[in-house]
Amino acid sequence: MKADIITIGDELLIGQVVDTNSAWIGQELSKAGISVHRITSVSDKEDEILAVLKETTERSPIVLISGGLGPTKDDITKAALCRFFNTKLVFNSEVYSDVETFLKGRVHSINELNRTQAMVPESCTVIRNMVGTAPIMWFSTPKGVLVSMPGVPSEMKHAMSTEVLPRLIKAFPTEALIHRTIHVFDIPESILAEHISEWEESLPDCIRLAYLPSPGKIRLRLSAKGSERKQLEEAVDKAIDQLYPLIGDIIFGFDDQKPEEELIRLLKAKSATIACAESCSGGYLSHLFTSIPGASEVFNGSVVAYSNSVKAGVLGVDTGLIEQHGAVSREVVEAMAQGAIRITGSDYAISTSGIAGPTGGSDEKPVGTVWIAWASKDKVLSRRFLFGKGRERVIMRTADAGVIVMKQLLEKGEL
Amino acid sequence: MKADIITIGDELLIGQVVDTNSAWIGQELSKAGISVHRITSVSDKEDEILAVLKETTERSPIVLISGGLGPTKDDITKAALCRFFNTKLVFNSEVYSDVETFLKGRVHSINELNRTQAMVPESCTVIRNMVGTAPIMWFSTPKGVLVSMPGVPSEMKHAMSTEVLPRLIKAFPTEALIHRTIHVFDIPESILAEHISEWEESLPDCIRLAYLPSPGKIRLRLSAKGSERKQLEEAVDKAIDQLYPLIGDIIFGFDDQKPEEELIRLLKAKSATIACAESCSGGYLSHLFTSIPGASEVFNGSVVAYSNSVKAGVLGVDTGLIEQHGAVSREVVEAMAQGAIRITGSDYAISTSGIAGPTGGSDEKPVGTVWIAWASKDKVLSRRFLFGKGRERVIMRTADAGVIVMKQLLEKGEL
Repeated sequence: MKADIITIGDELLIGQVVDTNSAWIGQELSKAGISVHRITSVSDKEDEILAVLKETTERSPIVLISGGLGPTKDDITKAALCRFFNTKLVFNSEVYSDVETFLKGRVHSINELNRTQAMVPESCTVIRNMVGTAPIMWFSTPKGVLVSMPGVPSEMKHAMSTEVLPRLIKAFPTEALIHRTIHVFDIPESILAEHISEWEESLPDCIRLAYLPSPGKIRLRLSAKGSERKQLEEAVDKAIDQLYPLIGDIIFGFDDQKPEEELIRLLKAKSATIACAESCSGGYLSHLFTSIPGASEVFNGSVVAYSNSVKAGVLGVDTGLIEQHGAVSREVVEAMAQGAIRITGSDYAISTSGIAGPTGGSDEKPVGTVWIAWASKDKVLSRRFLFGKGRERVIMRTADAGVIVMKQLLEKGEL
Repeated sequence: MKADIITIGDELLIGQVVDTNSAWIGQELSKAGISVHRITSVSDKEDEILAVLKETTERSPIVLISGGLGPTKDDITKAALCRFFNTKLVFNSEVYSDVETFLKGRVHSINELNRTQAMVPESCTVIRNMVGTAPIMWFSTPKGVLVSMPGVPSEMKHAMSTEVLPRLIKAFPTEALIHRTIHVFDIPESILAEHISEWEESLPDCIRLAYLPSPGKIRLRLSAKGSERKQLEEAVDKAIDQLYPLIGDIIFGFDDQKPEEELIRLLKAKSATIACAESCSGGYLSHLFTSIPGASEVFNGSVVAYSNSVKAGVLGVDTGLIEQHGAVSREVVEAMAQGAIRITGSDYAISTSGIAGPTGGSDEKPVGTVWIAWASKDKVLSRRFLFGKGRERVIMRTADAGVIVMKQLLEKGEL
């Protein structure tokens, strides 16, 4: 079963907003066994929208649209839909009462703009929006359906999960489609590809392999498609089992698992706590932990020791060490981790110190040089990384490496 | 002048990767006065790629492609380009020597896969990739040009900035196109729209207005298009001047300005330093500061005081206050800010304490309740916010509000 995704809005074309809706919709459709044909972003111009509506409804039985449904004058999706389906806007009292309920307590009074949100194309089935003011509209097309959803990600996601997807799955028979992703750390793409080329050649026809490199990490995605879900699952499991002897030591996770989530799970199982002392990662390592619900059970807190005075004054790092070895050194990063354990009373700590750039590098310690330490109450290990240029990239890679290596050390019982 | 952007890769369609390349390319084209017609994402299937190449080259004089040029077997863009342009792959010794230079020191030896990267379609002009191994390919089309670039964002950006854009600007005459964006804080979209509706009606024909809402913020984008850049600039400046009497108090920035960048600039001008004490924002507020190059001049560091023991033990918050008022309270958040100033010796501090959810809320303090404090050495101010549900959203809104209000307080001399 094929689907087309359309996102509408000038902001997407001039790049003011990154289209994250399409990726999310693609993921959900894919899990439901529906393949995405194309993703198209168009501007808020009626003729452009009409052209895309024509092409996509001719091509795909399922067309999902997000965006262009706000109360303001630049949003014209509803007018375009009326024109395309040769229908007109009518007042829908149920939608109006939903808008009233939603806005109660949020605005002083309902205004004319909110009232226009209750105008919907006569020929569509309206699906109620329980978390916003723009209704969801379900139209029949000669090949199948077209569904128009709000562009605000939280509203679109709520509509998709609770109403649109369940209705699509009911309406369309789907083939089994499985994706498994293997996360690999610390290897260049071409070396990895060479290392597993025989394995790749031996994959059965129903499985496709893709390499998804990102800074410091590669995701290997296995996609299997066929009529029997159970057979596909077995084929994929077998392929992964055969991969372990080749690269088991650099695999750090699967699918949507986040290493920080896995690390938190490990720590919970040990009833242990953790803290961080961050210099170059600047709070991002803490953010990885605290973005996971329930992190507070194991994560006590951090010191973002950006200036040397905070390294010394708050973490208790000996100023002599900083003078002698520099802040970016094994000695200082190890003292930072031990300081974090001491002042927070945690069982483990991760610390970082490096040169995120763009300035501050030297021949001996170029931009991208990062020291990371991992400590328990009675042991401290550390390692130097060269993460290259790009401030944001160095920050992300530092935080990722801090978490991934900590997870590996705990799994292997080395800390 | 019109352009089409194509991104290639199954990972985009199944939503494993968010297409950030298109937004970036759109932004750069837009700045250069080139409008983007559509953005299309297609899979790594030759027939799909061929169909999109046909449609876009018929429609637009400029077609920019990214993705599908890696050394691994799933990348087939080059084969599709050969088929489309009716040409064949030939070995390019200059590209090969670039690949060799690039990989030197990164891999043990050049392998067969790297060698295939030096195979390029005979009919294209090759543009060298100075930061990666996949060459950039520039083809002539009946209407104009088609350029194929690597999908790795850093490589694509380097190629666009240094080679592709300058060549496009030289090859195509462009109309003047101006975008100005006004950032507004803390107002619902429909209220804002009503408040500025007369102003909106009075805008000249050459200016289009768009509302771009995101959690807690709205961006108002003015786009002006015409033959005379200077006239457009004057019209836009005039429109913004007229907006100030209406909503000047809630405007907090323009265009790509980040409030954290502005705040750092303000602090530098005062030779002042800042620190944070974060509970519910969990490191993200510090990350906003430290993601800006040169932040270390004003940002001393933070304490991420997630557990109450760190609030008391490291920041010196009186445990009696926490017991009496709870961690999410005016009293505790103000004591946290004062503690951050005391232990880091900074001039200013921002502190946060709230319930990010999904659990931990109560009737009195529902999920999304956040206290933020802003302190100088002799004054502390605080305010309660209700940021609603969604852990990530509460974290982002907390950090944003911390920065935006601090900037406003300093600008008004209230702190």
